[in-house]
Amino acid sequence: MKLKIGVIGAGTVGGGVIHLLLNHSEHIKNQTGAELELKHIVEIKPDLLKPFDLSNVTVSSDIETLINNPEIDVVCELIGGLEPAKTFIIQALKSGKHVVTANKMLLAKYGDELCKIAKESGKELKYEAAVAGVIPIIKTLKEVLSTTHIESIYGIVNGTCNYILSRMTYEGLDFEPVLKEAQANGYAETPPDLDIEGFDTAHKCQILASLCFGTPVPFDKIYVEGITKITHNDVDYANEMGYVIKLLAIIRKVNGEIEARVHPTLVPQNHLLASVRNEFNAVYVESDSAGPTLYYGKGAGRFPTATAVISNLLDLAYRKESPSLPPFIYYHNLNIRDMGLLLSRYYLRFTTKDYPGVLGQICTILGKHQVSISSCHQKETLSYHKALPVHVVIMTHESLESSLQSAVAEIDKLDCIVEPTHVIRVLQ
Amino acid sequence: MKLKIGVIGAGTVGGGVIHLLLNHSEHIKNQTGAELELKHIVEIKPDLLKPFDLSNVTVSSDIETLINNPEIDVVCELIGGLEPAKTFIIQALKSGKHVVTANKMLLAKYGDELCKIAKESGKELKYEAAVAGVIPIIKTLKEVLSTTHIESIYGIVNGTCNYILSRMTYEGLDFEPVLKEAQANGYAETPPDLDIEGFDTAHKCQILASLCFGTPVPFDKIYVEGITKITHNDVDYANEMGYVIKLLAIIRKVNGEIEARVHPTLVPQNHLLASVRNEFNAVYVESDSAGPTLYYGKGAGRFPTATAVISNLLDLAYRKESPSLPPFIYYHNLNIRDMGLLLSRYYLRFTTKDYPGVLGQICTILGKHQVSISSCHQKETLSYHKALPVHVVIMTHESLESSLQSAVAEIDKLDCIVEPTHVIRVLQ
Repeated sequence: MKLKIGVIGAGTVGGGVIHLLLNHSEHIKNQTGAELELKHIVEIKPDLLKPFDLSNVTVSSDIETLINNPEIDVVCELIGGLEPAKTFIIQALKSGKHVVTANKMLLAKYGDELCKIAKESGKELKYEAAVAGVIPIIKTLKEVLSTTHIESIYGIVNGTCNYILSRMTYEGLDFEPVLKEAQANGYAETPPDLDIEGFDTAHKCQILASLCFGTPVPFDKIYVEGITKITHNDVDYANEMGYVIKLLAIIRKVNGEIEARVHPTLVPQNHLLASVRNEFNAVYVESDSAGPTLYYGKGAGRFPTATAVISNLLDLAYRKESPSLPPFIYYHNLNIRDMGLLLSRYYLRFTTKDYPGVLGQICTILGKHQVSISSCHQKETLSYHKALPVHVVIMTHESLESSLQSAVAEIDKLDCIVEPTHVIRVLQ
Repeated sequence: MKLKIGVIGAGTVGGGVIHLLLNHSEHIKNQTGAELELKHIVEIKPDLLKPFDLSNVTVSSDIETLINNPEIDVVCELIGGLEPAKTFIIQALKSGKHVVTANKMLLAKYGDELCKIAKESGKELKYEAAVAGVIPIIKTLKEVLSTTHIESIYGIVNGTCNYILSRMTYEGLDFEPVLKEAQANGYAETPPDLDIEGFDTAHKCQILASLCFGTPVPFDKIYVEGITKITHNDVDYANEMGYVIKLLAIIRKVNGEIEARVHPTLVPQNHLLASVRNEFNAVYVESDSAGPTLYYGKGAGRFPTATAVISNLLDLAYRKESPSLPPFIYYHNLNIRDMGLLLSRYYLRFTTKDYPGVLGQICTILGKHQVSISSCHQKETLSYHKALPVHVVIMTHESLESSLQSAVAEIDKLDCIVEPTHVIRVLQ
């Protein structure tokens, strides 16, 4: 029950882990019986270590001292990014140390390779903090829901996007000013592309999909669409119809194939995911024997993320003798479903010139492509705004993605259409 | 990674466990590497076993055959109730078998005794299914949040009560007819007292409180109030003011003491717990380093509960060599806080005769007891209803429970008061 720990990186998450290991160790021992002992820190910026009393901890600026220290049981890689993180993890595993990481990008891209090395080395690679921060979704999928057949996962797993969409929804703001404020307050990175273009969500989508279905899910087969095109108009129209807009990672098993996609989604206001606001994350999972379940908490931030890292250390303290099966070990090779085969309801927001026959043209094209209309809203404009374009919002019945996209492409070529049509999928 | 399993009881939960062990074993092995092998069933009603192909399973109607079978690693006690369940668990532990149970009543009353025996025997007593069914709240508290300091827990942990309150809220029905229908549909037991009087919720409250704070929480020190006095009027008035009524198990650490209480509570409509509807359960946990988290799913039913049992079996398959610290092992002896010391906001619904001076009398008494009014609503009655009593609804600012109760006792003695005043606490 004693674990000797090395930490690489004392930034936001690493600093949180160091703080908790130094200050919560007595409480952890009381509550769990485990002794989590911080022995070594690798950090090239000495300033980051100033807040800590490290009298019993070796500090080095090079990785070799840590890797070559035979006393260390586990290495926490908390520097992020692809390199040198990848090299450090491989070195640690090969030198007989378990590894705990929060590095979602690395796992999404090289998860299989790293897990293969872990398996060959007889060591564990654990990564609870890589998906949805403090939410124990990896633990739950591996240790509870692994005995069920997962049917679908709907995750709000990027706090920045959820914060931006929440402020747009509840304060009527537009995308750009909220993003700027989020960056100023440290809620969003600069540049923010990884978050707002959906790639961070896609990294987590990849990890969850690989884990649930024991099948390879190449990152580039995941459909990814961010939130940059969402306007306050879309948020308002969705609200009027009883929906909120969320950026979801959606993973489903459909006819023996895997659907893995990331895009803004209209979520009914009475769905639990609609109540997940601001920087919070949540993962909604449907499985045959467990039914629907949801897990909610902070997806980022120093201590929530550090708590997830430490839960992995606790697992290692308890399980040294019996390593669990690594992730990214595949026993299936299921097809990743083509996005064009998706069946979904759609929110369409057309921006058109306001003259006779427009609605008829749009609806005729939709009908030709077998896209059936569920509701149609055109706002009346004031007469002195006659020259301005108007918004036509159409909700469709369940339609085929490929047909829908063909219809929209055709409509967007009409003379009456002023800007590209906004397409947002609706949660089933 | 191989576990040989005996099951006592093939009722709702036991039958679910048997079904999953027989039918999901290949999937479980793929997903986790563990082999969960059902070897023995004890059941006195042979009819319950008819749906299963038990060609590789020993079936007996006596417990001794199972206890004396040295091949069995773990016994699942799934008959419920205090005896003979307690004796069976003790026999199993003493004969060197781990025990998994879903028996919340037994744990709430004899948890410490049973865990002491487990510890002495060097075996584990696991009970994920005893609290909130498929929600992995025990696992999460022990393996994730045990490294943090828990500040508070708010749990909707009785599906029957939540179903009844949901139908009262969303369909405008009154308590009695919903209860009768719930009984007819199998959503509520007959007699339903354990559920609707709050005792089942209190059993779970006891288990969670003992677990989080490592301190004994005698069952009879938990304040328990059920939902039988809630009327559709209360539900409606709460709704008008932006709240829904939920039966909560509330556990908080306040000034080094433990608050453990079960009562109907006004929950703000925008709180995540307000969106937990029908038979669903949810547990909301606040801790220092993890922040607020929530876990949601079905708290009862054959397969959700069986999934929780099987997650415990999976843990045992992985952890045979390193048993984790049992629960109910105390390293603190904190005081259980007196209910009179509670600081809370309150919803008060007075039923009074409609004559001059009534509101003045009520408010004067509240003021005398230092209970400050936050809002006051009296519905206008139609003139031909003059003879009928009227409802006065008062929301208070934060007040001391003992003062509030003294004030209400004094008010209820007034001539104008027609029936005992309804007091419902408000979520902080």
